[in-house]
Order: sequence, then structure tokens, then C-alpha cells
Amino acid sequence: METVETLHMNKGAGETSYAMNSFIQRKIITLTKEATEKAIMEILCSRREPIMKMGIADLGCSSGPNALRVMSEIVEAIYAASNMLDRPAPKELMLYMNDLFTNDFNNVFASLPSFHKRISRKNGDDSRNNGYFGSNCFVSAVPGTFYGRLFPTKSIHFVHSSSSIHWLSRVPSGLEDKNGKGLNKGNISISKKSPNCVLEAYSQQFKNDFSCLLESRSQEMVYGGRMVLSFLGRQSMDHTSSNCYYQWELLANALMTMVSEGLVEEEKVDSFNTPYYASCYEELKTEIEKEGSFMVYSHEAYEVDWDDGMYLQSDNDILGAMSKGERFSRTMRAGVESILKYHFGNHIMDELFQRYAILVEDHLSKTRAKFFNLIISLVKRH
Amino acid sequence: METVETLHMNKGAGETSYAMNSFIQRKIITLTKEATEKAIMEILCSRREPIMKMGIADLGCSSGPNALRVMSEIVEAIYAASNMLDRPAPKELMLYMNDLFTNDFNNVFASLPSFHKRISRKNGDDSRNNGYFGSNCFVSAVPGTFYGRLFPTKSIHFVHSSSSIHWLSRVPSGLEDKNGKGLNKGNISISKKSPNCVLEAYSQQFKNDFSCLLESRSQEMVYGGRMVLSFLGRQSMDHTSSNCYYQWELLANALMTMVSEGLVEEEKVDSFNTPYYASCYEELKTEIEKEGSFMVYSHEAYEVDWDDGMYLQSDNDILGAMSKGERFSRTMRAGVESILKYHFGNHIMDELFQRYAILVEDHLSKTRAKFFNLIISLVKRH
Repeated sequence: METVETLHMNKGAGETSYAMNSFIQRKIITLTKEATEKAIMEILCSRREPIMKMGIADLGCSSGPNALRVMSEIVEAIYAASNMLDRPAPKELMLYMNDLFTNDFNNVFASLPSFHKRISRKNGDDSRNNGYFGSNCFVSAVPGTFYGRLFPTKSIHFVHSSSSIHWLSRVPSGLEDKNGKGLNKGNISISKKSPNCVLEAYSQQFKNDFSCLLESRSQEMVYGGRMVLSFLGRQSMDHTSSNCYYQWELLANALMTMVSEGLVEEEKVDSFNTPYYASCYEELKTEIEKEGSFMVYSHEAYEVDWDDGMYLQSDNDILGAMSKGERFSRTMRAGVESILKYHFGNHIMDELFQRYAILVEDHLSKTRAKFFNLIISLVKRH
Repeated sequence: METVETLHMNKGAGETSYAMNSFIQRKIITLTKEATEKAIMEILCSRREPIMKMGIADLGCSSGPNALRVMSEIVEAIYAASNMLDRPAPKELMLYMNDLFTNDFNNVFASLPSFHKRISRKNGDDSRNNGYFGSNCFVSAVPGTFYGRLFPTKSIHFVHSSSSIHWLSRVPSGLEDKNGKGLNKGNISISKKSPNCVLEAYSQQFKNDFSCLLESRSQEMVYGGRMVLSFLGRQSMDHTSSNCYYQWELLANALMTMVSEGLVEEEKVDSFNTPYYASCYEELKTEIEKEGSFMVYSHEAYEVDWDDGMYLQSDNDILGAMSKGERFSRTMRAGVESILKYHFGNHIMDELFQRYAILVEDHLSKTRAKFFNLIISLVKRH
């Protein structure tokens, strides 16, 4: 199954939409801000001549407020850095918003007029001859998978990606025996109970995908360009040490309670595997060195509580009244429902995520559950 | 009222969608094909060096099958011309799909995987490293009004626009007296009964808009770039000679029958005016010469029957069983419903377009109603 055909964050702006349930991702964007600002400063001060046209890409921009928030912060960082260096800012900024074909770009575009107004007000710029285009930012949407070519050759100076590259391009092959029976029985992701061949298959798929990402960006980026990748990963080479798949394990548990009540077939669960992989720094470094076009400038890691970012939801009355378990369940649903629906059907979704909320609430009452978020900053070498 | 906030072709792929009801526009695209092919040939043979990155923009691409059909034809024309000239085709094609922020780009993107597959199969090209990206075409969506800047400086070689520039950027100001009463009483567009000041206001708005379009493209296009504009216009300087607003007059009549039955307030009709203007070649030429960056390479005009393109609908059982009046009413509704809804509310739409269908059917039974479609091909001078 190709991720490109099935994965998208929940569309629109309704109760179960990604737009309304992406506060953890927003929190992670704020963690990435410093690395982004540093990378932009380095791009601008490493050149003698000012940049005329600067190409900026956000890979896996999603929909909802996070999408344009990232771009706003990047544009502000460019102006702030130019100001600090006492150099003219790039004359034109080409802002490419990338996500899969099925992403809700309509939702992103609806906020573009106010994005342009905000940017031009901040920068006191009125170079564009139209009320909606008071900025020198040319925003476009580039739909497609970032594990392949997306942009013209040597057109990009800065690539940003947050909460995206933990998604693989496809569910790895080799997760079934020769009779078509699932080898990752009772699980839907890597877990402590997964056999070795499953870990291997996932790891191989990640290597293939990540090297495609590097090769594609290598062709698209200019010399000295920078790439900041932020994503959910794991702490060490051991696949299961830091509970980095525990959000999936609980979802598998919720599915198995439905199996035990005859609401879902066991085989359906055994044959489902999520295209998600939590990589570690050592793995990334090996692939980066093998591909050869990029150099690691810096890397850092943060622990992010499962309920982090939820304070950002307190404005919202409905979400404010919910338990942490329910809120985490909504966040998870907004991100993964599309692939689950495709396999299990729409009819079990409400029930599944209600059960999931209870399991998460119970888990959070016993422990401080955390994600391990990695940020790596790369420089294009040649 | 800014068109940018209200005008969009009906979304999705349902019964009243533009995707399902844009056969006249498709017919017009086929009429424009020859001018497009000529322009592309001229671009390619006017240069000594082969073009490496070729920028192509479609202004007002809309949604549904027409959007990618235009791009497919342009790409094919580029390959055919390169072949005929025995030169290498441009290495990378940047295909910019433009329409207003509220256009249904999601619908366009859903067909992109098959677009890429078709293009790469036709050209036997496998330069992109992913199944969905077997072509060297980089497609992006650029939302915004084409009466302002959309693309970076000197990045575009060819601009295409079909069935779009008859839409003004806004309803002209000056259509009310000082007490706020509508001056274009009983009409919703220019009509034989419109007072002179209304004609003047529309004409002025068109001049402003068209000169903005020329100025913006002038900055964005390379020297020797070409622009092919195809749109509904009129035959002579006389605004009402060729019944070029008759589709709107019938819609005003349908509204007035609802006024007479107390279903719509008369003042509501008097205060509504559509942001639509049918220009003539002489007017365009004057603005092109005044702006100075472009030269007219050729211009032509076609009469298009109101029921032209309907034979393309015969595959569709539901549409096939409808009267011509009903089908034309659907086409009109798919294009103009958004602005009517905004003013009159959603509740009268079904009733209005049923009445409209009857008036159109009656009109078509008495006369062969025609649109006057203009095509101008321009060259960027310097």
C-alpha cells in the first residue's frame, strides 16, 4: 500500500479535523524554531551577494493553522536575519507548500489572503499592486511525495519539515508469510512483541525512503542550502527501548478489545501495519554519509509529553472539557484516521477512538508518556 | 465586492459541480489549441539555445477535467514542437495552475497522479525516481488573482487563459446613486436597458483590470514570452450589438419573475451586478498599446453556440435526458452560483435555475443563440 494514496490529515475544520487537533504538532514546530532561525542566518551570511530569489519549501505542510504558521515564521526569520546582518532581504521569496495529493490544500488557501496581509503589514512592504498581494512572497502548493522530485533543479535554498518524515512512503513489504498471513500478529506497528524480520523490513523501508529524500533534495537545492528536519524518532539503536511506538501499541490494544468482542476480525488486525517509523540519529547519519550530498550541521532531541500543547487548547470550550485521554485520542485520530478507514472501514472509527481514549487516559494516569522528537540540521555540500 | 472573495466555480464532482458542467468551456479550450500550439512553436524556435527550465502558467485554471486537460495539451505541444524542430525539449517544465483562493484545487490535485503517469508514458520519460513522478513536469498551484503579481520576476515563458478574463476583479463602483439605489434597475449586467453611466463604470473597471493583468505579466514573463488569452467578448465597440450579455439578461428575467411573485425583493435585484464584462478587440488593443510591454501577434474570433459542447455530455445519462435549456442552466449555475448565493442566499438557487432553464429553452427554440469568443495571442516585447 502506497502512503501517497491513503494518508492525509483529517480534512476541513470540523470536530475531528487535523486543523482543530494538531496542538502537539504545533508545540513541535515551536521546538524547531531555533534550528530554523540559525539555518536561515547561515544561508544569508554565507553569501557575498544578496539573494534575489530565495526558494523555501515546507515538506508535509498539512492543513490547518500549522501550515501557514511555519511559513510565517520562516519569512519573519529571513527579514530578522537580513536586518541583523544589515543587508537587503531577498527581493522575492518563493514559498512552496508541499504535501501529498490528498492533503486539504483548499483549507490552507482559504487563509492565504490574511497571510499576505499580515506579512506585508509586518514588513511595511507594498511592492505588489493588489490588496491581497502586498508582500513579495509567492506562495504555491506543490502536491506530491517528498520521497521523489518535487521542485526544479537548484531552485531551493531552505527546506523545512516538521512531523512528517516519520511517515514512510509505503507499508514495508515482507510483513506477510508465503501464505499471506501477517507476521506482525496482534500489532499494527513495530512493538516489543514484533519478530526480527518485521524490524528489518521497517528499517529497510526507512533507509530506502530517506535516501530518496536526500537524493531528490540534493538535485533541487543550491550549494550551501540548508535543511531542517524535525520528526518523532527514537533514542538509541534499540527499536523498542524508549516506548517510541507506544501510541500505536495502545491503538492495537483498542483494536484487539474489539476483536475479542467480535466487532473486528482478528485477521484484519494482523494484516494491518502502519507506514510509520521512528528512526534514530545513528541511522540517519549513516544514510546521510552514504548519499554524500549533505553534512550534518547540528542535531538535537527533545522529549515532548503526550499531553504537551494541550494547554493551547484551553481556549476551546469543547476540547477544554475533555479528559487528556480524549484529547490525545482526537489528535491521533486527526493524523491516522485516513489509513485506518481505508483498511477497517469508516464504521468502526468512533468506537475505536473512544476505546483508545480510555486506554490512553489510563496510561497517562500511571506514567508521564513522552515522544522523542529529533531535529537535524543539514547543509548541502556541493 | 471583490470577486476574489466570492467567485469560484462550483466545487467537487457532484450534479451541480463545475467539473460535471463545463462542456462549453471545454469546447472553447479546443478552439484555443491552435493559437497555443503556434505560440509554443514560436517560443521554441525564436531561441538559439534550448530552454532548460520553461515556466508555463494557466490563469483561471478552475477545477474538474478542463484544468489538467489544458496543461496536458500544452506539454504535448512543447514535445511535438521540439520534435518538429529537431531540438531537445526543455529539461524541466514548471507548470503553474492559477485560480482564486476559493477554487477547488483539491479536486485538481486528485487527478495529478494520473496526469503524471500519462505524460511520462507519452514521452517515454523516466527521469523522476518515483512512480508518481515519472515526468519532468513540476506542477504547482498558485492561488490568487491574476490582476496582480502571482509569479517571480522573469520566470514565465508561456501564459494561457481560457474562459477567465471576462471576469472582472470586482463589481465596478458607481453603480448606485447617492442614496444607495441601484442605477442598473432590473438588470444584473450590462443590457440594452442599462443607462450610459453603467456602461462607463463597467468599461472603466475592465480597463483598470486588464492593465493590471498586463503590468503583472510584463514583470513575470521573459523576453519573447507568449500569452494566449481566450474569453467571451463582443463583436464591436457597441456594448449591446451582439447580444453578448443575453445569458445574463435571461437570468435577470428569471429573477424578476420571482420578484413578481414576492419570492425575491426587487431591491435585491436592483443592487446586484455581476463582475462580468465582454470586451472587444479594439478596447484590448488600446490597453495593450498603452501599457507597452506586449505586441499583438494574432487575434481571432469564433461564434460558439450556447448548446455547443453539449454533444460531449451524451455519455452522461442524466445530462443526456435533459433539455438544452436545462443543460445550459446547469452550465451557467456551475459558473455563477457562488456570487449569486453570496447576494441572494442559497435558498432560491434551485428555483431560480429551474426558471432560468425554461427561459433558455424558450429562447433556444426561437433562435440560434451564440457566444462570441475572442482569442488574442501576445508577444512580450522587452
